[in-house]
Amino acid sequence: MDAEQLKRAIRDVPDFPKAGILFKDITPVLSDPSLFGAAVDTLAARYAEKNVDKVAVIDARGFIFGSAVAYKLGAGLIPIRKKGKLPYKTYEQTYALEYGTATLSIHVDACEDGKRIALIDDLLATGGTAAASAKLIEQAGGEVVGIDFLIELAFLKGREKLTGYDVCSVVVFD
Amino acid sequence: MDAEQLKRAIRDVPDFPKAGILFKDITPVLSDPSLFGAAVDTLAARYAEKNVDKVAVIDARGFIFGSAVAYKLGAGLIPIRKKGKLPYKTYEQTYALEYGTATLSIHVDACEDGKRIALIDDLLATGGTAAASAKLIEQAGGEVVGIDFLIELAFLKGREKLTGYDVCSVVVFD
Repeated sequence: MDAEQLKRAIRDVPDFPKAGILFKDITPVLSDPSLFGAAVDTLAARYAEKNVDKVAVIDARGFIFGSAVAYKLGAGLIPIRKKGKLPYKTYEQTYALEYGTATLSIHVDACEDGKRIALIDDLLATGGTAAASAKLIEQAGGEVVGIDFLIELAFLKGREKLTGYDVCSVVVFD
Repeated sequence: MDAEQLKRAIRDVPDFPKAGILFKDITPVLSDPSLFGAAVDTLAARYAEKNVDKVAVIDARGFIFGSAVAYKLGAGLIPIRKKGKLPYKTYEQTYALEYGTATLSIHVDACEDGKRIALIDDLLATGGTAAASAKLIEQAGGEVVGIDFLIELAFLKGREKLTGYDVCSVVVFD
């Protein structure tokens, strides 16, 4: 796929979710069958030979690309959700946001029947969400074989929180 | 697919999200690549000949099955989200819950480039969420060609809120 074509389809929405933030809106990518399909294929491509057991996806936009990637790879799916959303026994990780903290959770049995896990989210910003998610996978006994994003906001230096992982992004904004 | 096999894989979690509710946990279905793949294939199958332009998916668990179905069908994807989560201009629908109300939203341009829409969610309970979502699609100029659920809790009579739509569920609990 032409990553530039994908990049052009992403819509800038100023002052969302709050003043001063230029939000990267992926809905025009989702809306276009060829762009959506190409994005999923690109995310899945680097796992073709990696024997991934499951794809872990982060609540909620990560579900969108990650579940299609899992389907394409013939892998299982692990939802990583905000605290209180998963019904069974969970592990939790709390991490710092700009103001305050957030807590993510994973089912304790998420990696029982498959340990090689790809982690997929839509956006790499400051990296806190992905780092907490990788820790959750490891806490549940999984091995993070790669972390993938559709979009990376490189100027926020989120990769620095993901040192030691194999990180890949389809579209990078410098 | 054997719907009974899928049904057996759904885990009952008592008293979630609150006392007295027996929650249907789909994570064991997601976790098993063959069950997850079969669930997606079954949901997609009835749209094979229906020329669906896009699949609309409901925040957040609906994203999981719906995005894989959209990928399989070669369709676009429309996220229907809780109020305040979509960045661009939206239409909104507010509907009654057991206690209080909830508001869902759709981007105003969601159906501009394709009007035949399949609506997919994981669970049909009382039907309020799906009915509001169908209205949003119509408000945005789309035609709801079908509404599909992985699980239907038939004893809650959610279909009564979806009269006039072509509704289908993979697994039914009477």
